[in-house]
Amino acid sequence: MTMTPSSSTPWQLARRAERMNPSVIREILKITERPGIISLAGGLPSPDSFPIEAMRVAAAHVLNDAPREALQYAASEGYGPLREWVAEHMAAKGMKVDPAQVLITTGSQQGLDLVGKVLIDASSRVAVEAPTYLGALQAFAPYEPEIVTVACDEQGPLPDMLVAARGARFLYVLPNFQNPSGRCMNESRRASLIQAARSIGLPIVEDNPYGDLWFDAEPPAPLASRWPEGTVYLGSFSKVLAPGLRLGYVIAPNALCPKLLQAKQAADLHTPGFNQRVVHQVIRDGFLDDHVPTIRARYKAQRDAMRAALEAHMPAGCRWTVPSGGMFFWVELPEGLDAVALLPKAVERGMAYVPGGAFFASDPRENTLRLSFVTVSPAQIERGVELLAQTLRDALP
Amino acid sequence: MTMTPSSSTPWQLARRAERMNPSVIREILKITERPGIISLAGGLPSPDSFPIEAMRVAAAHVLNDAPREALQYAASEGYGPLREWVAEHMAAKGMKVDPAQVLITTGSQQGLDLVGKVLIDASSRVAVEAPTYLGALQAFAPYEPEIVTVACDEQGPLPDMLVAARGARFLYVLPNFQNPSGRCMNESRRASLIQAARSIGLPIVEDNPYGDLWFDAEPPAPLASRWPEGTVYLGSFSKVLAPGLRLGYVIAPNALCPKLLQAKQAADLHTPGFNQRVVHQVIRDGFLDDHVPTIRARYKAQRDAMRAALEAHMPAGCRWTVPSGGMFFWVELPEGLDAVALLPKAVERGMAYVPGGAFFASDPRENTLRLSFVTVSPAQIERGVELLAQTLRDALP
Repeated sequence: MTMTPSSSTPWQLARRAERMNPSVIREILKITERPGIISLAGGLPSPDSFPIEAMRVAAAHVLNDAPREALQYAASEGYGPLREWVAEHMAAKGMKVDPAQVLITTGSQQGLDLVGKVLIDASSRVAVEAPTYLGALQAFAPYEPEIVTVACDEQGPLPDMLVAARGARFLYVLPNFQNPSGRCMNESRRASLIQAARSIGLPIVEDNPYGDLWFDAEPPAPLASRWPEGTVYLGSFSKVLAPGLRLGYVIAPNALCPKLLQAKQAADLHTPGFNQRVVHQVIRDGFLDDHVPTIRARYKAQRDAMRAALEAHMPAGCRWTVPSGGMFFWVELPEGLDAVALLPKAVERGMAYVPGGAFFASDPRENTLRLSFVTVSPAQIERGVELLAQTLRDALP
Repeated sequence: MTMTPSSSTPWQLARRAERMNPSVIREILKITERPGIISLAGGLPSPDSFPIEAMRVAAAHVLNDAPREALQYAASEGYGPLREWVAEHMAAKGMKVDPAQVLITTGSQQGLDLVGKVLIDASSRVAVEAPTYLGALQAFAPYEPEIVTVACDEQGPLPDMLVAARGARFLYVLPNFQNPSGRCMNESRRASLIQAARSIGLPIVEDNPYGDLWFDAEPPAPLASRWPEGTVYLGSFSKVLAPGLRLGYVIAPNALCPKLLQAKQAADLHTPGFNQRVVHQVIRDGFLDDHVPTIRARYKAQRDAMRAALEAHMPAGCRWTVPSGGMFFWVELPEGLDAVALLPKAVERGMAYVPGGAFFASDPRENTLRLSFVTVSPAQIERGVELLAQTLRDALP
């Protein structure tokens, strides 16, 4: 497969195709998939958390109970009872949602694509955090925005710095246990961020794939509950059930719903009805109330193992914040170390991580890296972090 | 839900959003869904053709055999064995395909979206048939092309007229039992169309959702087999298995594969792995060889019923071509009759159809309509056509 069309090709690529690039992380992950490597590089949830038996029962039920409906074309908006479930679920988070505002998407990645399609013009500005979720940058890139990075601290975007994003089409923000930084925005930052955004008329796209994976206390109410008409909220079943079904949802202000729906129709007509019915069948009677706490307990134990390993092994000068939920630690190495350059050495020793630079839309901080703690055992975490620490020690003066 | 953002909204829509509109056909179908109406308006396959038992067995097998893999994130390219199946399936159609050229999509509608994303710039030209598939126009619209209509006869695009499309990014064509016209391009037209397209360097996007639904003889080899490096081919499992799983595929020349893959990754990461494995499990041992002939026999009997009903009832001055496969009759009414204006009268009598005008990118022929024969019984077809004929007679001078 050649990357460059030959000169005799009849095809002319769209200008936006130049903005599309292979995921840096996917390319990196390829080299880390060697057998025997302890990979702390993944962004996948633990398959041990998938409710396989419940899926079996639900799939059989749907194919017995409503096979023709589940296998036929369906509404672009999504399966009615699932939209209603989402609206009720959001009420528990302090957000008043009409099921008519809920659009079921083929994973929340599609939500990002639809938001980009409906809101971004070439050269219009889109504001993001530093660092930010790489998949969002990839979803927005084909629409050719100018990305503006808002300065952040350990709570996320600094409200006083939002003015630099004035006039942007939206601020994309992931307030709960962010990928990659693991940070969670506290109550006062949420309040002041929304106040600042409202005052300059900067709408918000709030992405929340990890919010239910808290370890000690539930995160504060969503940004969307504080400014419903100015926020699009993206949710997902990937981290609380399983990502392979590709089920997410967008909750949008009424003003945006018709255009998002038309974009959805044009993109894939509708999300597989079978999958929507299976997931609804699994969750309809409160399954997640019992299931999600088991994921929290599992991930918390692994987070604790990684915290202990980092404290035990990491050389002086490295910094990290202990995440209170989600899947990731974010590590800052001493200035001057380059996580991309060090990766092959870490792989040689037998472990892998994701260098942090790719998560910055501008001014990449190459002395950062992301560690996932959810797909590996506490013993592997301990060993993996030890190997990372050895790699760093070798590189330090 | 309001269609117009209030003046106080912080949202600014992308320019392309203006090009996105609710599907005219979906709006029309709403008024035709009244109980008791014989609807010949649908574009859905018959749920009687869905292999429900095979789906049950396959879903149970996948969730027993490889549940963790089926429910985890997966490769953006698609499930390897399914890509290999597609490549082998195409060999039977006379097309040499490397599995690396196959990209599994969330329905073939997503294939259209990805093609548009990678190939269309604002104001670039895209050539289509008259009439053409409305879903393709909707998929392309957000990328703001200038649509050029190529003059057609009953075999599809006229090779001599292709020169009007010189410089277009591609010609979109549906050669087998086209939606909406039902026409199928014969061997000599395929040969002369490809010759004309090659000579002016106009690449082809070939859409083939209905090709396996032939009644008497298999259609000639795909356009893509005649000019592989100049054709993108779109296939689908929606009409031979079930649309609710949303499974299609794109077969692209090597020059386009990397960009289509990156666009796919940005759009929804990957098509649900569970669905891909279920479909592969159903079809891997030749299931379609026995199953598709049962769909052909069913649809052929219904096609025959509609042909007989049209011959028995339609007033003089109406014309139609008998389709040799697929799902649709295309009817031309006497000049001066307007199928949109007549629809409420037909619904009043108790039947529904789809007016043909919306299927034209320019110069809509309002005296045309589309009739589907696959979701209604022969008795309902007879009655529905009779009611249509009565409606037309009332309208004729």
